[in-house]
Amino acid sequence: MLRAEWVESRKKFKNKSQMYLAREGIITEEMRYVAKREGLHPEFVRQEVARGRMIIPANINHLHLEPMCIGINSRVKVNANIGNSGLASDIPTEIEKVRVAIRYGADTIMDLSTGDAIKETREAVIRESTVPVGTVPIYEALKRAKGQVKNMTVDLILDVIEEQAEQGVSYMTIHAGVLREFLPMVQHRVMGIVSRGGAIMAQWMVEHGKQNPLYEHFDKICEIFKKYDVSFSLGDGLRPGAIADASDDAQLAELKVLGELTERAWKHGVQVMVEGPGHVPMDQIEFNMKLQQKICHEAPFYVLGPLVIDVAPGYDHIASAIGAAMAGWYGAAMLCYVTPKEHLGLPNVEDVKQGVIAYKIAAHAADVAKNWPGAREWDLEMSKARFAFDWNRQFELAIDPETARAYHDETLPQEGYKTAKFCSMCGPEFCAYRISQNVSEKMEEVILKDNWIAP
Amino acid sequence: MLRAEWVESRKKFKNKSQMYLAREGIITEEMRYVAKREGLHPEFVRQEVARGRMIIPANINHLHLEPMCIGINSRVKVNANIGNSGLASDIPTEIEKVRVAIRYGADTIMDLSTGDAIKETREAVIRESTVPVGTVPIYEALKRAKGQVKNMTVDLILDVIEEQAEQGVSYMTIHAGVLREFLPMVQHRVMGIVSRGGAIMAQWMVEHGKQNPLYEHFDKICEIFKKYDVSFSLGDGLRPGAIADASDDAQLAELKVLGELTERAWKHGVQVMVEGPGHVPMDQIEFNMKLQQKICHEAPFYVLGPLVIDVAPGYDHIASAIGAAMAGWYGAAMLCYVTPKEHLGLPNVEDVKQGVIAYKIAAHAADVAKNWPGAREWDLEMSKARFAFDWNRQFELAIDPETARAYHDETLPQEGYKTAKFCSMCGPEFCAYRISQNVSEKMEEVILKDNWIAP
Repeated sequence: MLRAEWVESRKKFKNKSQMYLAREGIITEEMRYVAKREGLHPEFVRQEVARGRMIIPANINHLHLEPMCIGINSRVKVNANIGNSGLASDIPTEIEKVRVAIRYGADTIMDLSTGDAIKETREAVIRESTVPVGTVPIYEALKRAKGQVKNMTVDLILDVIEEQAEQGVSYMTIHAGVLREFLPMVQHRVMGIVSRGGAIMAQWMVEHGKQNPLYEHFDKICEIFKKYDVSFSLGDGLRPGAIADASDDAQLAELKVLGELTERAWKHGVQVMVEGPGHVPMDQIEFNMKLQQKICHEAPFYVLGPLVIDVAPGYDHIASAIGAAMAGWYGAAMLCYVTPKEHLGLPNVEDVKQGVIAYKIAAHAADVAKNWPGAREWDLEMSKARFAFDWNRQFELAIDPETARAYHDETLPQEGYKTAKFCSMCGPEFCAYRISQNVSEKMEEVILKDNWIAP
Repeated sequence: MLRAEWVESRKKFKNKSQMYLAREGIITEEMRYVAKREGLHPEFVRQEVARGRMIIPANINHLHLEPMCIGINSRVKVNANIGNSGLASDIPTEIEKVRVAIRYGADTIMDLSTGDAIKETREAVIRESTVPVGTVPIYEALKRAKGQVKNMTVDLILDVIEEQAEQGVSYMTIHAGVLREFLPMVQHRVMGIVSRGGAIMAQWMVEHGKQNPLYEHFDKICEIFKKYDVSFSLGDGLRPGAIADASDDAQLAELKVLGELTERAWKHGVQVMVEGPGHVPMDQIEFNMKLQQKICHEAPFYVLGPLVIDVAPGYDHIASAIGAAMAGWYGAAMLCYVTPKEHLGLPNVEDVKQGVIAYKIAAHAADVAKNWPGAREWDLEMSKARFAFDWNRQFELAIDPETARAYHDETLPQEGYKTAKFCSMCGPEFCAYRISQNVSEKMEEVILKDNWIAP
């Protein structure tokens, strides 16, 4: 991969976005790279990007990034949120989170730092990361306004966006759909606004007595994004934070605006994905996915979970993996992970690992359900290795090889048992695979002898 | 609860089963107890039990059992499998598993011991358990035949069933649907037969050259079950053990027989639930649930997972909780848990805890999706406590209070922060709830002042 050269060769274009180039009929090297990764035809990738149904978030200044795509016609992707808070973590810890997230298969990383050294942390994260890095620039803007929303000017916001874009951020959450007129709808909610960006923008509108500046100055943001090929991640500032608030007026009113903004960004030739909930009971997931596809013209949907219940703090990676798997199956293009610490505290390195693994499971389950080419082959390989008692191959194929091996070995202290044709679950006598294989051998004889055919 | 008296009062009936009594028009005390627990009318419970759509597995000799029900018109239930193997565990460990399983919400327990002291282990398990205990009697039968299938006679099998019934087992897995003529269908599978009971019965048929004895002597088993009110759990000996084998001929051929056996047991007035897969991709779950409901005349469906992918050893409680939640939503009545050790070894106490919790999440998610009366109220209470920063109430409402509290507290070493109106995720400055609440207060003024109404 010679991404520096690829970027260099496109110097002449003022609009650097993959969407613009795709519309010009150009198959970029990033598109070819993505096509190879996904097993798609490069021209198909170009068409999808031109159409807005797929994005390739690849800032021209993040040169060691390995291009990937997000879209309904590709593998379902996983994002891992990292970042410090005012109360916890430092740069080395955040870098360790990046490593662990990528190791277990995160497709993108968002640095959501709100604590100290936001800029330096992001710089280190981008340096470390081979996957696209996303941010929520409003956090740094508020931090630079010393936590005072009333000091957060439009110019400050735009400056922060431009600086982050120059630094190599590939997509940014922009909460431009939280309009002033939607705030009364939130008053009736159980959980109000649970999106940090959404809450900050609401406070801004109330304190300034004006419309959402990200909405008002949306075209200016598009102009910045064009220069570096930053993709929009249109933030769902009014996403539900409770089962009770799911699919309510506030959420759907915002979604409609996100649909309008998608078209506005596309007019600029800027890539867009749209963020989604949150907390959604299972019976509302399909409806939510289909609605977004319709309202946002099939722009990739990037959902947070969703959690299908509210009562599992400490296990929200599981409660949300259920919703995420279903969302992916019904068309969400990327799943933002939730860690076991959700609702309780800032995730540590182990939480990041647990979150990414739960979401790799969800994303792969969605690919399998969609029968995405190649998806079921992985499971087939595992099943073959399992039935053949090829333990090493099973561990190799596992999402988390070390844990699988450790669990297997810990219950088999006996000499020579670690590679045996059974495990401690049943022991040799009661192993169904062994019995089944013996039966199968005998059946071959029986079938031949008796000319035995199934009814 | 005076179950000894309830049972005593029904001495005169030769058939002790709840189904028989329900059909006689009798609302038993167990039905009343269940009705109270579920928020149903006792007459409705009686009708459901009479119809076979609900079972109350309550052996007349397990007197300290708290009656519960399994059926499509009640809360989705969770079963936890425990039991030793030839390679691991002992009675004290198994009793600890029973305690932990019940503590985190298992509705029934299956003792699947295949190692030493099977009878003594079961005795201890039943003594400890306040929930119905299920077994697979063929395991003990094979053990008593010294592991030799050819020595496993029909009389031995029936003796074991009767002894276990007398001991107080409330439901037994009987693999009567694995017919001789289905074995050739298994030859084409990736994973053959993965059910221990199914594999043992297949071996029996091949070695004895005869039809499945559990099928041939099904009526005799019914006669035993009547005496103690044991429910059938019609085993799916040919359940798929891999995504690649899901919904294949062998599985569906067996299901048809289970439908016939359901009717046969019902003729005896014996309660029945039907076991189901196993490994099923998400796109086949709804179809599988609906098919069972049709073929088995709405007898409760008791599913194992299903796992929606095969590649997550070490995390199969998560991979299967996704399938289980969906299965519950589509009508499965009870979800058999899968632990993190699945496919790797015998679960220990911690694995039992993790498995039960993952499945409480799945079962509650199903109840929420079905909008089962009262289900969403739990989530509503949690969401209110969350928005109010009432941490103690949140922990109280959590599926695992200790873990939730520990996760919250570990990242807040600062004095006085443990009950603060923020957590370490965002800190006070970036807490969306706090900002949202401030905005909400101001909005009340703004709305009044400006007569501001949402569009």
